[in-house]
Amino acid sequence: MATYKDNSKKRAKAPAKAIKKNREKAKPPFRIIPLGGMKEIGKNCTLIECNNEILMIDCGFAFPEYEMFGIDIVIPDFTYIKKNMEKIKGLIITHGHEDHIGGIPYLLQEVSVPIYASPLAMGLIEHKLEENYLTCEQHVVKAGDRFRIGGFTVEAIQTNHSIADSLAYSVKFAGGHVFHTGDFKIDYSPLDGNVIDLNRFSQLGDQGVDVLLCDSTNVLRKGYTPSEAVVRRSIDEIFDNTERRIIIATFASNVHRIKYFIEASMKHHRRIAVSGRSMENVLALSKRLGYLDDIPESVFVDVSEAKNLADNKITIITTGSQGEPMSALTRMAYDNHKSVKLKKNDVVVFSSSPIPGNEKVISQIVNRLYEKEVSVVLASAMDVHVSGHASSEELKLIHTLIRPKYFVPAHGEYRHLVEHAKLAHSLGQPNEHIFLLGNGDALEVNGGSTHVERGYTSGEDVMVDGYGVGDVGSKVLNDRKKLSQSGLITVSVALDRATGSLMAEPILNTRGLIFEEEHMDLIREAISVIYNTIGKSTSAGALDEASLTRAIKSDMKTFIYNTTKKSPMIIPVILYV
Amino acid sequence: MATYKDNSKKRAKAPAKAIKKNREKAKPPFRIIPLGGMKEIGKNCTLIECNNEILMIDCGFAFPEYEMFGIDIVIPDFTYIKKNMEKIKGLIITHGHEDHIGGIPYLLQEVSVPIYASPLAMGLIEHKLEENYLTCEQHVVKAGDRFRIGGFTVEAIQTNHSIADSLAYSVKFAGGHVFHTGDFKIDYSPLDGNVIDLNRFSQLGDQGVDVLLCDSTNVLRKGYTPSEAVVRRSIDEIFDNTERRIIIATFASNVHRIKYFIEASMKHHRRIAVSGRSMENVLALSKRLGYLDDIPESVFVDVSEAKNLADNKITIITTGSQGEPMSALTRMAYDNHKSVKLKKNDVVVFSSSPIPGNEKVISQIVNRLYEKEVSVVLASAMDVHVSGHASSEELKLIHTLIRPKYFVPAHGEYRHLVEHAKLAHSLGQPNEHIFLLGNGDALEVNGGSTHVERGYTSGEDVMVDGYGVGDVGSKVLNDRKKLSQSGLITVSVALDRATGSLMAEPILNTRGLIFEEEHMDLIREAISVIYNTIGKSTSAGALDEASLTRAIKSDMKTFIYNTTKKSPMIIPVILYV
Repeated sequence: MATYKDNSKKRAKAPAKAIKKNREKAKPPFRIIPLGGMKEIGKNCTLIECNNEILMIDCGFAFPEYEMFGIDIVIPDFTYIKKNMEKIKGLIITHGHEDHIGGIPYLLQEVSVPIYASPLAMGLIEHKLEENYLTCEQHVVKAGDRFRIGGFTVEAIQTNHSIADSLAYSVKFAGGHVFHTGDFKIDYSPLDGNVIDLNRFSQLGDQGVDVLLCDSTNVLRKGYTPSEAVVRRSIDEIFDNTERRIIIATFASNVHRIKYFIEASMKHHRRIAVSGRSMENVLALSKRLGYLDDIPESVFVDVSEAKNLADNKITIITTGSQGEPMSALTRMAYDNHKSVKLKKNDVVVFSSSPIPGNEKVISQIVNRLYEKEVSVVLASAMDVHVSGHASSEELKLIHTLIRPKYFVPAHGEYRHLVEHAKLAHSLGQPNEHIFLLGNGDALEVNGGSTHVERGYTSGEDVMVDGYGVGDVGSKVLNDRKKLSQSGLITVSVALDRATGSLMAEPILNTRGLIFEEEHMDLIREAISVIYNTIGKSTSAGALDEASLTRAIKSDMKTFIYNTTKKSPMIIPVILYV
Repeated sequence: MATYKDNSKKRAKAPAKAIKKNREKAKPPFRIIPLGGMKEIGKNCTLIECNNEILMIDCGFAFPEYEMFGIDIVIPDFTYIKKNMEKIKGLIITHGHEDHIGGIPYLLQEVSVPIYASPLAMGLIEHKLEENYLTCEQHVVKAGDRFRIGGFTVEAIQTNHSIADSLAYSVKFAGGHVFHTGDFKIDYSPLDGNVIDLNRFSQLGDQGVDVLLCDSTNVLRKGYTPSEAVVRRSIDEIFDNTERRIIIATFASNVHRIKYFIEASMKHHRRIAVSGRSMENVLALSKRLGYLDDIPESVFVDVSEAKNLADNKITIITTGSQGEPMSALTRMAYDNHKSVKLKKNDVVVFSSSPIPGNEKVISQIVNRLYEKEVSVVLASAMDVHVSGHASSEELKLIHTLIRPKYFVPAHGEYRHLVEHAKLAHSLGQPNEHIFLLGNGDALEVNGGSTHVERGYTSGEDVMVDGYGVGDVGSKVLNDRKKLSQSGLITVSVALDRATGSLMAEPILNTRGLIFEEEHMDLIREAISVIYNTIGKSTSAGALDEASLTRAIKSDMKTFIYNTTKKSPMIIPVILYV
């Protein structure tokens, strides 16, 4: 702790700073505008704007939140981007996870923008573009590359994360110097040997960083996130100690980890079958990009051939570690997999931890596997998974190397951003130099002064439902919620246009309310309620449509609640003939 | 480990056993029938049947599973109980948690049965009975009590758990001796000083136990579950180090822990306000039962008065530790609480851990609290909560003290039951003496022989929805799920009975599909689809109602999917006039 504080004092005292401050007054102002990733995990998207030019960092999607019924994904609001189309000079991508690239197809439907990404990320993006019949200018970037995008000089710096080719970015421009870590951890023994380039972090810190944006996901975890080497040891232990069939579920994009599964299999004279569309895609891409150059093609075997090999001669690598309903592992667990029938004593390894919200569905799969007398290995019992995000001590190191003037905690729920702010402050960063931004807020840096404009542009969630982008709002979601709770009743009546009297028997339909066939009494009584309502209405002189609709709704609602204590949606339809 | 193995060898070698085996042949057969609590956490309910008499142990409910949309609670299937009404001699309750007593009102609507429970459990049961205008014969039981229920001699044994007055039961009867632990942990320093009566466990083990049923919830946790004393230390630390307002959310039924919160408050000259209906009820009950006899009434203050006290003079104890939508803490977080306005630097303690499935909603509340600049203390960061269930080393002790002939792992998901079986086997229990039962299965013990009858009676989930008990089945749930995903479209047409021609403009309604007002084009196009379908139908000669319904459904489904990629439920209604 003392070391960090000393550092910060040095920072404050350095005479160079005073000179610099004077120089800063001549610099043009710039803005940092997060459109996603603030107060949430997911849909990362940040803009740097200076001199009428905008550089975009990442463009991801988020999984739907709790109670976003029926929503496929959530993307950032691109209103500001559409309004400032001609200013957008480029999009730089930190890595190929969906929460950093998943919004790109939706972005490209609105604006055209050159994309800069590492080989794996670009491969994953290309796949998305092909699926959506989209094209764009593409620039493949490697760690250490420096390049210009409009007035921005961008440098890509090696980091470690749970996907290969992850990058941090240093962005220098007339207004200043912004450093964005992307998602990262510090791994001194990563599987591919490419350790995060802390020396470069330090050098760039020496050059002076105006704003640091830094991953906050794991700030609540004390200490250090373990190295991927830990997973390697656990996997070795499993392979050394079983002659059974091994099935490993993990995230398709963790290419280096998957490569290690392959190497471990080879060492134990096992061949490898791959199951699950995303796993197959990523593997094909990895081969094409040369990540698997030292793996002979002959070790792979089609998953349909797996059953012909002895148990101790095969490893199956599969999707489904999050219990996704259509994934390969889920299909295996429920006997719906075309080629893989699970059998007693198979070893199923979950090389993953549950993403919050998936706990229950994963539990169901695990119990299902136990019923098949499969040996299940979970990360909670054995180190078969480690996080890809930096814990608090690693974050302290980054702050200490970068020593930014201003700090913006990035990528995290609100509590993560707040705790990251506290962490920075504990290292000597003055509170007035730390900015907790929401999506759509703008941090404006103008020479030595700063200003936060809350709600500078819309930072709302845009929900994607089928082809619809933003066509579902809170009213529709509320309806879906209500329908999910007690279903609905439709009441359809045909009335004489002149007299308002019934022209046919009223029809009542229910869905999701009650098992109708076994409750015909209730249905009959409900129909008599309709007759009563209409009788009352006509005897009092024909009601107008709106009043009659209201009366049907209210009488039916009361009747159903009193008899069943349920509150279905009531949908009256009146046809005047 | 060696010790346990030695024990088991002793067991196998003991000459007394051989003599006993001969005697057993003369004993009448008996059955153990779990109706709930197997392959699930929740709705514990187990029957022991011998000589045409049935003793019931616990009668709980479960919270709805994943995708049980709109379901309030799930209770055991009482079919077997209704069919054997005259055999039911009594219901003994291990403790007052809902998953052990919550099914009682539904049971008593079907059969009349005397209930035996500890003071706190009985108080909670009485409250339920009053709410439901029910009565029954009640017997309050204390640890150490021995009593007869029909041919069963029941003994209540002190255990520890996260609610006061938890009991295990020894049940002796003509057929044998069954020991049920209930939910428990081993706490050598519980807050009330009543340590689990391990001596009695040991003595009863000496007397010979035929079947042990033992809590499996925490079998996956290694080592020992920490004592409640740990929570006391953390609470002291919080009270010692803040002059701010302290708000503690916890489970209402953890009376001893709540008492400690009160004592800690008194030590720091704070008064106590209580918020949340269940918290108020349990507190009133605890006072009546004498659990709070040494707490002067004057330390309590109405929650509406709390704001008039200085921050360091008040503690608020509240419900809502699971993020329940209507709970006091949730209302505070969303500024809907009548008396408590949260303010900067309030300390909010979650003395709880998330029940699986509640993680996301709790996260939302926590982030909300961070936005209010409240200090949030979670069990993940500080020991403000400990589990109430025994971890694996504690379970080993119980097996070693009881040394049962047969073992039935109880209360747990399937994986818990399997791991508990493995644990018992590791201690020397032969696999053929371990029985993994499902709800509705029967273990029949007949002298020295055993038999498991799978599906002996129905052990299905019975879903409660409003007043409906079992009126919602899988079809209704499927409909609710479908409705929650994309809502619905109703298509209502009035046709001439003779010609099948349209008598009024068709009416199309959507709910939960799309924001209609902004997509009137889609609605207009959809209406023209209806005209087309009916036109086709009448031109080809009027279709019968069923065929026309099918045609409308199919045409509309195709149109909507092709234009929106959504799959709402289509509900055609045809009124012939």
